[in-house]
Amino acid sequence: MIKVIKIGGNVVDNPELLREFVKDFAAMPGMKILVHGGGVMASQMQKAMGMTPLMIEGRRVTDEASLKVVTMVYAGWCNKNITAMLQAQGCNAIGLTGADGNAIKADKRPPVYVDSLGKDIDYGYVGDVSAQSVNAPFIYSLLSRGIIPVFNAINHDGKGNLLNTNADTIASSIAVAMANYRYRSPREVCCRCEECTHCCDDGRLTHETDLIYCFEKDGVLYDKDDDASVIPEIDKEKFAQLKEEGIVADGMIPKLTNSFKAIDSGVARVVIKHARNLLNDKGTILI
Amino acid sequence: MIKVIKIGGNVVDNPELLREFVKDFAAMPGMKILVHGGGVMASQMQKAMGMTPLMIEGRRVTDEASLKVVTMVYAGWCNKNITAMLQAQGCNAIGLTGADGNAIKADKRPPVYVDSLGKDIDYGYVGDVSAQSVNAPFIYSLLSRGIIPVFNAINHDGKGNLLNTNADTIASSIAVAMANYRYRSPREVCCRCEECTHCCDDGRLTHETDLIYCFEKDGVLYDKDDDASVIPEIDKEKFAQLKEEGIVADGMIPKLTNSFKAIDSGVARVVIKHARNLLNDKGTILI
Repeated sequence: MIKVIKIGGNVVDNPELLREFVKDFAAMPGMKILVHGGGVMASQMQKAMGMTPLMIEGRRVTDEASLKVVTMVYAGWCNKNITAMLQAQGCNAIGLTGADGNAIKADKRPPVYVDSLGKDIDYGYVGDVSAQSVNAPFIYSLLSRGIIPVFNAINHDGKGNLLNTNADTIASSIAVAMANYRYRSPREVCCRCEECTHCCDDGRLTHETDLIYCFEKDGVLYDKDDDASVIPEIDKEKFAQLKEEGIVADGMIPKLTNSFKAIDSGVARVVIKHARNLLNDKGTILI
Repeated sequence: MIKVIKIGGNVVDNPELLREFVKDFAAMPGMKILVHGGGVMASQMQKAMGMTPLMIEGRRVTDEASLKVVTMVYAGWCNKNITAMLQAQGCNAIGLTGADGNAIKADKRPPVYVDSLGKDIDYGYVGDVSAQSVNAPFIYSLLSRGIIPVFNAINHDGKGNLLNTNADTIASSIAVAMANYRYRSPREVCCRCEECTHCCDDGRLTHETDLIYCFEKDGVLYDKDDDASVIPEIDKEKFAQLKEEGIVADGMIPKLTNSFKAIDSGVARVVIKHARNLLNDKGTILI
């Protein structure tokens, strides 16, 4: 079993919530990977340096100066602090960008047509990733030695450029890549043990892989103003119904659409929950 | 053979020199480790954010706000750019702070008496390291899989704090640790091959390890204003003589003193040379 856990910028920006989350993450047994955002802090830093953050449809336009700031904030301050905090909890974390060990190679996004503006927009140093971008053998080599990768939003293009990438997409890409990664069992034969989901023709195995989105809400809610109205389980049919009823709307639609894509691509479960509930079974499970 | 190479802030700040150095470093065969500074850029960033860098006897006083800036600049922008540049040259680099994989655990420096001020100074979030601080098995596990560690000046104390550390000392500590690290030969017996310097009682081997300081001068100079006056070789006796004659003075004295300590502790050679001369034998060799 491998767990890929994503925490959003709101968790990273909240020192108390982050401290509690780090403790829980460190205590969680088994193979695990952390992916973190850090958006609010990057915008604050841009403003402190006299820059104006430019977001179009929720995505940051990343020119050279902005790339410097997000790399400093995400890969520098946030990533190294979380790594040091995990180390203090006895979790042997390693902070990574996609450039490190060539862990994730992204494609620079070409200019895209933005409906609301009616024209092509060049997002600048922004990268797109998929499961094919992920160096699963490298990540697995760390996991198998008890080293816990901590990814941030910065990747590279293999040509010497760093690229800012959506952290949700990084998390789902890693989860799909790890779910499909065939490792050779130390026993060199199919053991049919609990941690293996199935055996492949060549005697290699895959790990059941979960993707867990932790944020500052208790899950997908029937009523967005009522934190107690968590929908415990959503399958594709229910998702279609919830969309039609307008219960799932706005930013939650692409999140859930991408989550079901991850499930179709081999991820066992996607869970959406509050960061403080990492170790319990509260939240919304997508199956 | 393991080579530990340190580049100073003047190389990191010079885009053209850095680009050439990165190409040469990537082309260098064998096991290698890069350690980089980045001091000038950190001070620029502090000033851009309205802070006043405070240096006492050449060392940065690092309060919480300064720690944030140096972590962003060293571990974020500089480290990830160098890593991405190396990846583009086919060198499978991994950017590391001491927190990553618990590679280097530093001790927070207690307040120290500063002669020139006549009082104790608390340098803040500043760490001291020695060869004992270095996690040689982890670093060797990367090297043995062809992954090239790229260290910056940020380490951790194991209690969740990041610490700013002198990059020269990081380089010499890593070199001493690697020179003394006993690895098991893949052949499981002493092979007396060229890459091994000697065999140990338990059948483990050590790698001959060089420490190379690359900066913007051609080496240790007889005349500091004449770049052609490089002293090709210095042993301890000659060092004593050069100090007495005042030819080696100021910041070069601690650099050379620490270099000879590294040699006494197992490092084969220390070389001081210009960053553009990495692949040739120009420079000053300390033996």
